[in-house]
Amino acid sequence: MVKKESVCIIGSGNWGSAVGKIIGENVLKYPDVFEEEVRQWVFEENYRGEKLTDVINRERENPKYLPGIKFPPNIRAVPNLVEATKSASVLVFVLPHQFVRGVCEEMKGHIAPNARAISLIKGLEILPEKVTLFSEEISRKLGINVASLSGANIADEVAKERFCETTIGCQNKEDGELFHMLFNTDYFKVNVIRDYVGVELCGALKNVVAVGAGISDGLGYGSNTKAAIIRLGLMEMRKFGQTFFGTVEDSTFFESCGVADLITTCSGGRNRKVAEAFVRTGKPIDVLEKELLNGQKLQGTLTAQEVYEFLSPRKMTHEFPLFTTVYRIIYEGAPVESIVRDITL
Amino acid sequence: MVKKESVCIIGSGNWGSAVGKIIGENVLKYPDVFEEEVRQWVFEENYRGEKLTDVINRERENPKYLPGIKFPPNIRAVPNLVEATKSASVLVFVLPHQFVRGVCEEMKGHIAPNARAISLIKGLEILPEKVTLFSEEISRKLGINVASLSGANIADEVAKERFCETTIGCQNKEDGELFHMLFNTDYFKVNVIRDYVGVELCGALKNVVAVGAGISDGLGYGSNTKAAIIRLGLMEMRKFGQTFFGTVEDSTFFESCGVADLITTCSGGRNRKVAEAFVRTGKPIDVLEKELLNGQKLQGTLTAQEVYEFLSPRKMTHEFPLFTTVYRIIYEGAPVESIVRDITL
Repeated sequence: MVKKESVCIIGSGNWGSAVGKIIGENVLKYPDVFEEEVRQWVFEENYRGEKLTDVINRERENPKYLPGIKFPPNIRAVPNLVEATKSASVLVFVLPHQFVRGVCEEMKGHIAPNARAISLIKGLEILPEKVTLFSEEISRKLGINVASLSGANIADEVAKERFCETTIGCQNKEDGELFHMLFNTDYFKVNVIRDYVGVELCGALKNVVAVGAGISDGLGYGSNTKAAIIRLGLMEMRKFGQTFFGTVEDSTFFESCGVADLITTCSGGRNRKVAEAFVRTGKPIDVLEKELLNGQKLQGTLTAQEVYEFLSPRKMTHEFPLFTTVYRIIYEGAPVESIVRDITL
Repeated sequence: MVKKESVCIIGSGNWGSAVGKIIGENVLKYPDVFEEEVRQWVFEENYRGEKLTDVINRERENPKYLPGIKFPPNIRAVPNLVEATKSASVLVFVLPHQFVRGVCEEMKGHIAPNARAISLIKGLEILPEKVTLFSEEISRKLGINVASLSGANIADEVAKERFCETTIGCQNKEDGELFHMLFNTDYFKVNVIRDYVGVELCGALKNVVAVGAGISDGLGYGSNTKAAIIRLGLMEMRKFGQTFFGTVEDSTFFESCGVADLITTCSGGRNRKVAEAFVRTGKPIDVLEKELLNGQKLQGTLTAQEVYEFLSPRKMTHEFPLFTTVYRIIYEGAPVESIVRDITL
């Protein structure tokens, strides 16, 4: 008999909690495939005088990051990272990207030999010299295969079991089938494709497009213009992928991680909203981050800057006119109207 | 010296008027290519005691269908169809689809030997036995080449020169270049592709998807769900095209006529709005058409019915679950919640 798969979720924020509920319910559907208990590594914090892990394990709920949503009883919150992950054959990374390196350092040398992972981490590391996917970073650090998951998945709506789709990018066919079992439900429809690079790129670059859409909203330009910005943005996301990662497929942009997530991000979402306020109020982004985001950094403007600093030494900024125009409006004082004047080749 | 192109616009509604302004301005930019005067066939009506053509020619404005927007002086409204079209080498069809047959009958035998046309007509003729594109219908009746134009182009926004894109599908390269000159401006960006069939299909089938999006809005399902419906709709539009018209290209759905027009139609638009009201009020569509559309027929529900009656004898309704579910909810009393339960294969 084949050894059952043992699952550990690394992270317990808003998205990690929503995904924890799905995974906890799904392993119970396949008792021949998965061990019943799912461990979830929770960064220990004090919650109203108690340890957060104790509250989660008692209340079957994460009152800090996903209040009002009950977990199945087979989820166990664990505050020690090595204890949570060491015997797992399936590792689900769902934590803010700034913690990835440290977490991998701590796990290194303590993971099971048959382990593989899936990354739900949002974003990319874009430096002037290179672009790094977090799935590849984890893979390099831990020496294991890493798939990626991204889609039009606002966490609160997923937690309320509102219908949506998601995309898993996974090169290994058997791992892809396993991840499908782990994530797919009636209300959370998983498509597995091979192009994990495209899946991850979409999840980061969409935020730059959403800033552009927000600028257009701030100018009151209407729905033709916004649809054009979204479409041109999708084409630049595709071009960026195909220029710097030759393996990215056209079809990936038709998946939930592509067009659907872009639509969601450009209709609601903080990037769109803050960019709209940038135009309407004339305040700089760092002031708006304090006023509207409690001082948190906006992802889309940061990514626009990183993309610009990556393209610039390569003399390729003009080949990505939307990304470049968003950067110039936000950081170089270019007129906001250039969002429609300067974005076509 | 080559004879100059002579342009006639057939139709003068809201979209025809917006397009008339663009064409009138563009022919003046290329005096070596186009004759200065552009004729516009206007279905003669009484407007406040005067002939509408007289009002248009005096006021340089169509106060009935596009009030507040001035035409360039080289547009001439002509009430007689044969007089307007007989010497034209470029015919622009932009009129409601129910008038296409009659207009072509009247023009037949009276058009110039070098004439070619472009169709901006919305919709398809879908009968149980076959699907007919209006571009092909015109081509057959008049024996000339016919291209098509469609995109995320709400007429009033185009008339106000708000930035957007559009797609022209044209098989003949030289005609494509001519149409680009005729339509492209700084604020109305034209992409010319070969797949005229895909361009026209998108313009009709998007309305069925918008009904689905409106049902989801009526149920309050949020943005993940709506993005999933839009994406699944885009995939069914593609599948319909590739199943019944083998020439339709994947890339067409990335153009303005595809993803961009679908986004616009599913965010604003009467199809989305009436479908939302259908869920919220429980009133049948024909009642809502009276209340919300002054008795005009809703395009998306009609197309859903025609698509169903086309798929049904072919035993293929289950291969287009979103189109089929929209039909069943609107016409067969299926539960509105099936918009998320029954739309994936």
